[in-house]
Amino acid sequence: MSAERYTFPHKHLLGIEPLSARDITALLDQARAFEEVCERPDIKIVPALRKKLVVNLFFENSTRTRNSFEIAEKRLSAEIINFDADTSSLNKGETLVDTALNLEAMHPDLIVMRHSAPGAHALLARHMKASIVNAGDGAHEHPTQALLDAYTLRKKLGQLQGLRIAIVGDIRNSRVVRSNLWLLTRMGAKVTLVGPPTLVPREMQATWPTVDISHDLDAILPQQDVVMMLRAQFERGTGAYIPGQGEYSRYYQLNRERMARARKDVVVLHPGPINRGLEITSEVADGPNNLILDQVTNGVPVRMAVLYLLSHPHGEQVP
Amino acid sequence: MSAERYTFPHKHLLGIEPLSARDITALLDQARAFEEVCERPDIKIVPALRKKLVVNLFFENSTRTRNSFEIAEKRLSAEIINFDADTSSLNKGETLVDTALNLEAMHPDLIVMRHSAPGAHALLARHMKASIVNAGDGAHEHPTQALLDAYTLRKKLGQLQGLRIAIVGDIRNSRVVRSNLWLLTRMGAKVTLVGPPTLVPREMQATWPTVDISHDLDAILPQQDVVMMLRAQFERGTGAYIPGQGEYSRYYQLNRERMARARKDVVVLHPGPINRGLEITSEVADGPNNLILDQVTNGVPVRMAVLYLLSHPHGEQVP
Amino acid sequence: MSAERYTFPHKHLLGIEPLSARDITALLDQARAFEEVCERPDIKIVPALRKKLVVNLFFENSTRTRNSFEIAEKRLSAEIINFDADTSSLNKGETLVDTALNLEAMHPDLIVMRHSAPGAHALLARHMKASIVNAGDGAHEHPTQALLDAYTLRKKLGQLQGLRIAIVGDIRNSRVVRSNLWLLTRMGAKVTLVGPPTLVPREMQATWPTVDISHDLDAILPQQDVVMMLRAQFERGTGAYIPGQGEYSRYYQLNRERMARARKDVVVLHPGPINRGLEITSEVADGPNNLILDQVTNGVPVRMAVLYLLSHPHGEQVP
Repeated sequence: MSAERYTFPHKHLLGIEPLSARDITALLDQARAFEEVCERPDIKIVPALRKKLVVNLFFENSTRTRNSFEIAEKRLSAEIINFDADTSSLNKGETLVDTALNLEAMHPDLIVMRHSAPGAHALLARHMKASIVNAGDGAHEHPTQALLDAYTLRKKLGQLQGLRIAIVGDIRNSRVVRSNLWLLTRMGAKVTLVGPPTLVPREMQATWPTVDISHDLDAILPQQDVVMMLRAQFERGTGAYIPGQGEYSRYYQLNRERMARARKDVVVLHPGPINRGLEITSEVADGPNNLILDQVTNGVPVRMAVLYLLSHPHGEQVP
Repeated sequence: MSAERYTFPHKHLLGIEPLSARDITALLDQARAFEEVCERPDIKIVPALRKKLVVNLFFENSTRTRNSFEIAEKRLSAEIINFDADTSSLNKGETLVDTALNLEAMHPDLIVMRHSAPGAHALLARHMKASIVNAGDGAHEHPTQALLDAYTLRKKLGQLQGLRIAIVGDIRNSRVVRSNLWLLTRMGAKVTLVGPPTLVPREMQATWPTVDISHDLDAILPQQDVVMMLRAQFERGTGAYIPGQGEYSRYYQLNRERMARARKDVVVLHPGPINRGLEITSEVADGPNNLILDQVTNGVPVRMAVLYLLSHPHGEQVP
Repeated sequence: MSAERYTFPHKHLLGIEPLSARDITALLDQARAFEEVCERPDIKIVPALRKKLVVNLFFENSTRTRNSFEIAEKRLSAEIINFDADTSSLNKGETLVDTALNLEAMHPDLIVMRHSAPGAHALLARHMKASIVNAGDGAHEHPTQALLDAYTLRKKLGQLQGLRIAIVGDIRNSRVVRSNLWLLTRMGAKVTLVGPPTLVPREMQATWPTVDISHDLDAILPQQDVVMMLRAQFERGTGAYIPGQGEYSRYYQLNRERMARARKDVVVLHPGPINRGLEITSEVADGPNNLILDQVTNGVPVRMAVLYLLSHPHGEQVP
């Protein structure tokens, strides 16, 4: 009788920015259904993407994200091609669009791409019939990471609406932050960005006006429900903005002393890989408050949900 | 009643040279049957190589060819092992035959190999029970490229017999040319090799006496049904034979001005990857006459046909 | 009625050392059942690991061992993730345990690992729910190699009990030797370690007191049923202990002249890859006495047996 049946309306997942709260909820609900599949002792595989061809196109190293996608694809029974960019025709001077068109000519159904250029995924989406999934693009978006963070928090804390969440560290150079800001603000969480002034650009408040900025982790920590630590990427840009690792750790490392200021049930997230002893100590990373491994675990059903809803846009149930 | 049923008589595909016109036609017909499979919206996979083990043994980088073979293998439901030569025992000084015998001991059904030594595939074929498919060997043969070129032309133009085809560029260093010359002359096409004298060895007419040679692309272009552009491989030998890229482009680049001399319905092929602005301009590469992406698309059903006929020598129908 | 039904009692295969003679026999018997599967002309695949996820985690190059495991996994219908250590988060400073926990979070059933640190596998086993298979660890153990050697000998010679076996070469730096010593002494074979004094540490007799040591291959050769040649790994440590390759070959190379001193039906093994002309000549490596390729062939069913018994600890029959 109802004409109101919701249909996931997107063909690509280029970022969180274009998603509505309803879309995000649909993805998280679908992920929950798939999590049950993953937890079954014996039959962890569903035929949802059977005979679909998925190309994993990674122009940057990311074993963790790639493995997670590949496991998600296998659990959905997809056919998988891993396109190794290092040994590719790109070395022969071919453009990204030529590479994309050549892939397209082989009729893939989905392309999961990591590429350091922020516009690369949108460029691909314009040229291809396949659905494009952004698996990370420079310092712009990493939407499946934000979705798995949200899934982990919703599972632990019930809902995102009203949660007080501090995101701590190299805000400037993180693709994780931008995707999380789109998602968390859209879902009604109260976000504070925390880090040294050089790593927390003030102009981010122009894009996300409800977000607070703080340079004093100790001051804001007691009010937080969630602390999302970022990797200090000294190898990728963090180093250019701060005086040194010791200085950084003194003010922004999550350690036992600092945790004493937080709520007892505060939840700690980290997108990994962890720099033990730099932005977080082993005591905290392995302690009772962290959900770091839950994040990894949840990455598989969340990515299954993304792949499934993009290729089944009419919102059918999981087979 | 008929005792004349044709059976594909080859165990290996080492090159086009040993194939009869009847064999080539059988491969192209089989590819057409598989193309229908590839075009189906949902069920692109057939169980034709189910439980067969295929080893992809690439001693040279070639993402494009390797992906195409791998997709063909997946569409045939084969089990696939990708043997990465860079990380292989060959680094420990093992000979190719030892590597081959070690593979053989694991009972593969088919081995798809790219190797820069012209004799490598024949050597393997002598030592192994598996069928060997040549996926490119130095400057000698690249038979599946010639088959997909022929498939693309037959599909567009009806038949190969009588077609006037110019092959333009670095004839000397191209494995694509040799395979195409065997195929096209055998099928009755009229081929002209075009390029600077240093890149078009006169002695090729000793092997293919029906082939013409020209150094003047502008002069022969108006008579051609097909122009097959070759990649100017300055990184692989072209550079040693010609004064410079500007000089090369002036006389042999396919661009809009030159295309004005050609028949309006001339067909342009290129084996890829394209050097935009060198042997071909983007206007032509992306223009209405080119079938470059069709070539890529057709690579999959053509390679399915090769793998299928080699492992089903009695010419059964596609299941 | 019998309450004596044997159950394979191990969750991990970290080495041969913890295995009883009964366990070894169970593995070899299971491998024999799988060998029949491998020899079937068409249906080489069984659903024994269907929907199980196996991660191949190779921190050292070993195409041969990795291919053998991967074929074994495919023949068992497992889902496979190849974790490429070179492109992994380990490059970003992540510890092995963090990598392991991240893998664990994705719920693999089995992890096949090669790692140069002798304790790495035990460390992983302590932290993970998945079964760990040691695919080689520095100079410590390489249990599946010893099992396939034993399988090859049992198949050819009926039983291991009482066999006189010389292991010749770089005893000091070989992981193959240690696993073989545990296995062969446990099964009642009579082993002699042969090589220059610098490469045969006397203290090995403390661990395996029934083993003989000799520096004179010519003297002990006539009494042997089996000669197991080791690879002279000049690139990995052998070179530091001996004066030169010529000297080494003069005394320890297996060649035609030396073979004249051996029993006519002596069996020659080598774990590969072979250094032709160094520790063994081509005449012998390709001659009638060697079972070198049988070893490779047998690697697949032996590894199938390992994977199967670790994941089906109650000893069900092969489906």
